[in-house]
Amino acid sequence: MTTEMLLTFAEITAILVFAISGVIEAVRKKMDVVGIFAMAFITAFGGGTVRDLLLDRRPLFWVQNHEYVWLVLLLTLIAPPLSGVIRHRWVDWIIKITDAFGLGLFSISGALLAQAANMPLIVVLIIGVITGVFGGVMRDVICDEIPVVFRNHQPYALCSFFGCLVYWFLHTAGVVSWVGLVAGAGITSGSCLLALIWDWRVPEWPGKSNG
Amino acid sequence: MTTEMLLTFAEITAILVFAISGVIEAVRKKMDVVGIFAMAFITAFGGGTVRDLLLDRRPLFWVQNHEYVWLVLLLTLIAPPLSGVIRHRWVDWIIKITDAFGLGLFSISGALLAQAANMPLIVVLIIGVITGVFGGVMRDVICDEIPVVFRNHQPYALCSFFGCLVYWFLHTAGVVSWVGLVAGAGITSGSCLLALIWDWRVPEWPGKSNG
Amino acid sequence: MTTEMLLTFAEITAILVFAISGVIEAVRKKMDVVGIFAMAFITAFGGGTVRDLLLDRRPLFWVQNHEYVWLVLLLTLIAPPLSGVIRHRWVDWIIKITDAFGLGLFSISGALLAQAANMPLIVVLIIGVITGVFGGVMRDVICDEIPVVFRNHQPYALCSFFGCLVYWFLHTAGVVSWVGLVAGAGITSGSCLLALIWDWRVPEWPGKSNG
Repeated sequence: MTTEMLLTFAEITAILVFAISGVIEAVRKKMDVVGIFAMAFITAFGGGTVRDLLLDRRPLFWVQNHEYVWLVLLLTLIAPPLSGVIRHRWVDWIIKITDAFGLGLFSISGALLAQAANMPLIVVLIIGVITGVFGGVMRDVICDEIPVVFRNHQPYALCSFFGCLVYWFLHTAGVVSWVGLVAGAGITSGSCLLALIWDWRVPEWPGKSNG
Repeated sequence: MTTEMLLTFAEITAILVFAISGVIEAVRKKMDVVGIFAMAFITAFGGGTVRDLLLDRRPLFWVQNHEYVWLVLLLTLIAPPLSGVIRHRWVDWIIKITDAFGLGLFSISGALLAQAANMPLIVVLIIGVITGVFGGVMRDVICDEIPVVFRNHQPYALCSFFGCLVYWFLHTAGVVSWVGLVAGAGITSGSCLLALIWDWRVPEWPGKSNG
Repeated sequence: MTTEMLLTFAEITAILVFAISGVIEAVRKKMDVVGIFAMAFITAFGGGTVRDLLLDRRPLFWVQNHEYVWLVLLLTLIAPPLSGVIRHRWVDWIIKITDAFGLGLFSISGALLAQAANMPLIVVLIIGVITGVFGGVMRDVICDEIPVVFRNHQPYALCSFFGCLVYWFLHTAGVVSWVGLVAGAGITSGSCLLALIWDWRVPEWPGKSNG
């Protein structure tokens, strides 16, 4: 029950933060209100939907929790008056922190469901990462950009990968379920925040200058 | 039976018009014949395929009605001699009118199937809209454009949304099935045409000039 | 058993070659290591994953053979020291030849599975082609390019189409399974190589100059 409530809270947080990043990108691309809702919806639910399609889970998580969709619709409607405030530096940091938080919770929810479906290790890790980052990938592809997670040299997806790996080890070692979930999500979110603060970079590709 | 025939006619009309819009976009992007067929196929069947994947319906509607695929293949083959004619102003209007017609019928077919699968209201509406517009979204994404439905400030997706809403209300109120289908499709198509004639615009985003 | 081993070898070859083409494109787009693995993964497994989703096959082929994912991960890690070598002309030709080989084997694996699921002819052909080319389509879309297979005027997808057609005819005519598989894959790969050597072009669109 605690795990389920934690997951619910995880999903709502991740969904709202991801939806906001969709709204920001849609506004930057001068989309209309239809596009703004669509980008909020796709960024928030894209990763989980791909996870559910790959694992063949039905109903989809946003069908089962259709109040999440109303929430994103509401967010889209109340976002305009808030948008003036969004350019302040500390708002930027709040978004980054909750985004790291959302990444952790969403990734581990993906890893948890993949493991519950008896997937092998590498598939658990990949579905965890996809659940965490694919909403953003779909947002960028639709906004006609190369996905930022693939090219910004920040270890965003790697944080998700290692958090899922820790979760998997703890689960396989027989540690109580919620400990693994909290540790996995905490390592993902924490390393993601440390990477932002200390400006960690993923390695350059050696031949990059010849590209 | 009448409903089924209506749906069949709806699908064929929508498919051909959507396929033509895919062909036009592919030609504009200087694709070869492979690309032209692929864009016709994806624009025509993309929305319904995403609907079927989300609702977990098999066989897919273009597998069940595989003569639709032959039809699109045939269209691609006969389109070149017709393409000289396509630039006339009245052809443009015929395409817009049938496109509005197709949007209505396709959206309501999506809403109908979502409702038959016992989806909640917001999911019925979203699957209706996705069925109506996602073929065009996929067309634009593959053609390396931001989807026109998200940025042209025309209420295209909103017409689909309100038509599905009317259909849902009539169905929930116990009105005979075909009345709801005709009303929903009619409101979607009609409002879409009125929006074109009177140049209705969806609201601007307040902070747009800062984007 | 022979058929299964042939298919396994086909998949591994196709996967590695397709993964390399993803790596090359990712490096060209100056992605980081996350993006490079993601592009290798998506290019290698994209076509087969779409095939499995359309046919509703679970587990997905890269879940069932999860050692393939490790192989692509390994490839991504050893690729940097190899990348200096990749620009030699004969390496380019080795990649083209194995790519033609991979296209044939992947396409026919798609056609085989579609036929085993009792799909009608046109669906067998389309799923064969999708399995062969969609990894590359997804690679190009994510890399913010119009898919090269849709616009380079080379008959790449048509080779896949005709190979699947030959396979289908032989299977329907009651020819032993492995003969159809080898003939279909051979025709796809062979015609693809001949098209490269003799520079075959698919027909221009008549109205192209007006596009």
